[in-house]
Amino acid sequence: MTDVATNMRLKLPIICFILEIILIILFGVLVQYNEETDAKEWHKKNHSDYENDFYYRYPSFQDVHVMIFIGFGFLMTFLQRYGFSSVGFNFLIAAFSLQWATLMQGFFHGMHGGKIHIGVESMINADFCTGSVLISFGAVLGKTSPVQLLVMALFEVTLFAVNEFILLTLLGTRDAGGSMTIHTFGAYFGLMVTRILYRPNLDKSKHRNSSVYHSDLFAMIGTIYLWMFWPSFNSAITAHGDDQHRTAMNTYYSLAACTLSTYGMSALTAHDGKLDMVHIQNAALAGGVAAGTAGEMMLTPYGSMIVGFLAGIISVLGFKYLSPILEEKLKIQDTCGVHNLHGMPGILGAIVGAVTAAVATADVYGDGMKDVFPDVASGKVDASYQGGIQAASLAVTLGIALLGGLIVGFILKLPVFGAPSDTICYEDNIYWEVSLTVVSESL
Amino acid sequence: MTDVATNMRLKLPIICFILEIILIILFGVLVQYNEETDAKEWHKKNHSDYENDFYYRYPSFQDVHVMIFIGFGFLMTFLQRYGFSSVGFNFLIAAFSLQWATLMQGFFHGMHGGKIHIGVESMINADFCTGSVLISFGAVLGKTSPVQLLVMALFEVTLFAVNEFILLTLLGTRDAGGSMTIHTFGAYFGLMVTRILYRPNLDKSKHRNSSVYHSDLFAMIGTIYLWMFWPSFNSAITAHGDDQHRTAMNTYYSLAACTLSTYGMSALTAHDGKLDMVHIQNAALAGGVAAGTAGEMMLTPYGSMIVGFLAGIISVLGFKYLSPILEEKLKIQDTCGVHNLHGMPGILGAIVGAVTAAVATADVYGDGMKDVFPDVASGKVDASYQGGIQAASLAVTLGIALLGGLIVGFILKLPVFGAPSDTICYEDNIYWEVSLTVVSESL
Amino acid sequence: MTDVATNMRLKLPIICFILEIILIILFGVLVQYNEETDAKEWHKKNHSDYENDFYYRYPSFQDVHVMIFIGFGFLMTFLQRYGFSSVGFNFLIAAFSLQWATLMQGFFHGMHGGKIHIGVESMINADFCTGSVLISFGAVLGKTSPVQLLVMALFEVTLFAVNEFILLTLLGTRDAGGSMTIHTFGAYFGLMVTRILYRPNLDKSKHRNSSVYHSDLFAMIGTIYLWMFWPSFNSAITAHGDDQHRTAMNTYYSLAACTLSTYGMSALTAHDGKLDMVHIQNAALAGGVAAGTAGEMMLTPYGSMIVGFLAGIISVLGFKYLSPILEEKLKIQDTCGVHNLHGMPGILGAIVGAVTAAVATADVYGDGMKDVFPDVASGKVDASYQGGIQAASLAVTLGIALLGGLIVGFILKLPVFGAPSDTICYEDNIYWEVSLTVVSESL
Repeated sequence: MTDVATNMRLKLPIICFILEIILIILFGVLVQYNEETDAKEWHKKNHSDYENDFYYRYPSFQDVHVMIFIGFGFLMTFLQRYGFSSVGFNFLIAAFSLQWATLMQGFFHGMHGGKIHIGVESMINADFCTGSVLISFGAVLGKTSPVQLLVMALFEVTLFAVNEFILLTLLGTRDAGGSMTIHTFGAYFGLMVTRILYRPNLDKSKHRNSSVYHSDLFAMIGTIYLWMFWPSFNSAITAHGDDQHRTAMNTYYSLAACTLSTYGMSALTAHDGKLDMVHIQNAALAGGVAAGTAGEMMLTPYGSMIVGFLAGIISVLGFKYLSPILEEKLKIQDTCGVHNLHGMPGILGAIVGAVTAAVATADVYGDGMKDVFPDVASGKVDASYQGGIQAASLAVTLGIALLGGLIVGFILKLPVFGAPSDTICYEDNIYWEVSLTVVSESL
Repeated sequence: MTDVATNMRLKLPIICFILEIILIILFGVLVQYNEETDAKEWHKKNHSDYENDFYYRYPSFQDVHVMIFIGFGFLMTFLQRYGFSSVGFNFLIAAFSLQWATLMQGFFHGMHGGKIHIGVESMINADFCTGSVLISFGAVLGKTSPVQLLVMALFEVTLFAVNEFILLTLLGTRDAGGSMTIHTFGAYFGLMVTRILYRPNLDKSKHRNSSVYHSDLFAMIGTIYLWMFWPSFNSAITAHGDDQHRTAMNTYYSLAACTLSTYGMSALTAHDGKLDMVHIQNAALAGGVAAGTAGEMMLTPYGSMIVGFLAGIISVLGFKYLSPILEEKLKIQDTCGVHNLHGMPGILGAIVGAVTAAVATADVYGDGMKDVFPDVASGKVDASYQGGIQAASLAVTLGIALLGGLIVGFILKLPVFGAPSDTICYEDNIYWEVSLTVVSESL
Repeated sequence: MTDVATNMRLKLPIICFILEIILIILFGVLVQYNEETDAKEWHKKNHSDYENDFYYRYPSFQDVHVMIFIGFGFLMTFLQRYGFSSVGFNFLIAAFSLQWATLMQGFFHGMHGGKIHIGVESMINADFCTGSVLISFGAVLGKTSPVQLLVMALFEVTLFAVNEFILLTLLGTRDAGGSMTIHTFGAYFGLMVTRILYRPNLDKSKHRNSSVYHSDLFAMIGTIYLWMFWPSFNSAITAHGDDQHRTAMNTYYSLAACTLSTYGMSALTAHDGKLDMVHIQNAALAGGVAAGTAGEMMLTPYGSMIVGFLAGIISVLGFKYLSPILEEKLKIQDTCGVHNLHGMPGILGAIVGAVTAAVATADVYGDGMKDVFPDVASGKVDASYQGGIQAASLAVTLGIALLGGLIVGFILKLPVFGAPSDTICYEDNIYWEVSLTVVSESL
């Protein structure tokens, strides 16, 4: 099952070594410990150890880390013969992306005297950016080589940092949990890439593009971890104190409500009332995506629940009715249905964020306004203007994602990157040593 | 394999949507951010960010959350053809229960000026209450529809909150890790429900009521997570400082000792000395249950180990000798053996708590008495009286659980709820789309 | 498949009960709550709750705990018919070792007025020591009875504590993440044990000494958890503040770089360019091992990446070329290849630590020197001397590990301990009740 094109003997080592060596050199030249990780700097000032940002954010970081490596990785193991690649390529491109993101994000908004200063917050941001790449990975899952994925990550991280810089720094957009910067961006970037990589004869691999019993259980590990730790994700980089606390709680209730609407919709849309694992594995998470922007705001618990409730409905409907249309009419082959989990719920989250921002009042936020809407608190803009900024940011994100995906999609078409042929997509055996036992086991 | 009765096409959506809409309305009317999650309230006072309860309790909360969704969910995947339902229904009823518990617990002990105030502590308490429902789920696993489970959760959460209110608020009982409120309550409630739902012809599904190799490995994921995070569970809502620290440590040693006695007893009670996965998956956890009440007390490390050691022995003996008797003589069909993991160890924990409370002295507790036994510290009661209260609380809990289970069991017998027939219990295929591949794989 | 020798009916209960009863008695006599877990002592002093060490270290502890029980346990489930034993014996010997380690480590460096004082830091140290035993378990996996493993743990924990005492207390060595004390010690101890237990006819079980598709996916759960939480492992007992923060970050980048070199090397060394799951599951973790000593030092981010990059290369080369030689020439049958994951990367970590220590300057460390190199800060030794101490510590560790493994290996050869015969190694069925279904499933 190996042919010359997909043989990774030289391609993969070359790209891994070149990328890592470039990373090491750039880190050597540009990256320094920040004040909280540097032995000398930290001890220069007179502060208590518990004021170190490590204690505020490291538990959240670890939860995010689990989402990136276990959550995304195992969520994609639902395919019957693609578990090694799902977890394994997820692992590889995440390990690369978090290093590259440290540089790109640092370059755009972490420079101090010509150096990029890093600590737990930059680690979280790097993981966030990585999440965006993994969302795009979901759209092209099973149809790309690891070399293609590394090239995609290289460009996508860069564009992510540009978009993030425009939104958060230039426009003053608020998007702590990344409904726009992470989910909308990652989804539409990936959808455009998979559109460009459209395979008219993909039905030759159709028999492998489905799950078996235990592969669905492995995928549920990913789902449940994403679901549980989404409150940590959305609150990981909000301001200390009430902000982290409130964001986590809003997300918790949004997800809980989303789960009920997902189960209801899954049974309702099936002709025999049976639940569909695809919906449970994915749509139940849409509440986390949709609370990504407004989660830190005074969304209220019941507001969060409404958002989650709607997100679950939209997401199941997307899987059931929209995905087949996208594939047939628009030629978008979206393996994991990222449009339903990250795309539409991300847009919903952006809209909810814009509305919630527009109606923010000093009466509700008090002195907490400066944490959530610093530009409103400082009088630089008023709340309705902030709402407008939020809405405009969605448009910017969609534009950069789609344009970026277009360009990167064409780059990935270069045959040198070793994509599998149409007859052997969704198959671990191309890129991995797989023991023969597997064949008898899963057929 | 679908017949009209078990078809969830309308039943499940109707109950999910009605419940969630009621929840949203009640949250809208009754629930508010507390002082630590509200932007305005938190900033009114002059405190440091690290004083926010989020930093004391959120890591514990996340560990508890993992126990609820991964721990309970995967522990129950041991059945060969019921993994989707185990993880999936666990997910559904937990997502509902935590919302409903927020309201019920808030109603009984979280009201401030007519509003329920919520934050990380209420989130932990809601997860705790959810744990109780999931214990009951274990007793009826494989024999109930998701609609039945939601109805059971609705009533059980309510009764849980009543019992908890009587114990913690009216009586002044101490039960931080819930040996009584969570484990004893959940177990005996579930045992009574399964008694009422007794199926004389359940042996028609007997061939599915067992594990296969990989289903046992999936179940070990649940076991190990429950085991690892039980120290966080028992310490999640104790007082800050030494109390959380001590409770976690006591539980850690109780569990370690329990594991050794479990392995010893499992080999000893097998005619050929082979270990039984059922014991390892369950009995090794009994040390956490049994340290639920006394864990926060000055139980001492070796005291904790004795408790765990005994709990492991009792639990294995229960699985080996008592469960068959309960099924044959008392007609209690306890799928997961919750009587052995939560029932008897819960009672043991309650007794240990009563004794430990009764012998508490100012000499041992010093000024820490006010955290562990506030009523004793204030002079309202003496230690031996506190011990009596603890013992009485066990009786109250058993009474409410058994009576509640009796009533709820009869409600669940209504045919409209879509229970599976005796011939197709322990079978995912009734409620889930299952690919045909599974049949060849696991038969 | 059971014969008299491997029947655990009496052997396992006897050793479990005797060990646990001895532990309880020794804990009763020797162990006390420390100042942060004792109700009276903690309240004697006037401090804020957030100063309790619980809040600095408990999240790290839980991450370490996950590595020990899920990480090591599932990493070893790669064998097709040995999953129960991998997770189950890992569970048993870890539960024993952490109790015994509390006593041994307490005896050597935790005595206060004749009592061993315990808290979260001792819990982490006990888990660390347990990790060392589990590394040795990896070398003998599939070829030992649970009784042999408990006996091995009994001796290995003791010797671990002796070595740790010599290094950390007598010599003043720095080794926060245990490149030497944990990884080098555990690996070479285990390698010597497996050398002594050499089985010339092990090829009779060769067909079971390999993976199947889903067993490799289970193993990836272990790998990914180890990878994600290694930053917590290395930083768990460093000084508060910048030290924990920096150590976690150094490890994070070391692991990321290691992952890229592992993937590159795995493809490069395969004749058809296919990735080998053994490499991904193991070598990608070598960056964590290699950052174990220097992680807390001012290694710099790019320095950490170089270390990880090299560790991945060394480790894959070890699996590919050195392991077969060790087995054929030196008769070392190393089931999990611990020499490649813990042995060589541990030595690399020790050397990196020695060099980094030797070049430490006040200019770089400032007042932080006292946390990282207290003996250098106090003027007791200079940096180059500290480097020499570090190098000498590696030699001491290797000596104690090899000599200890030699003696313990001979003890384990006693037939009473019930080792499996050469024809039934790597087989759960000897020690576990395994349902018949498994046979048809995995053959």
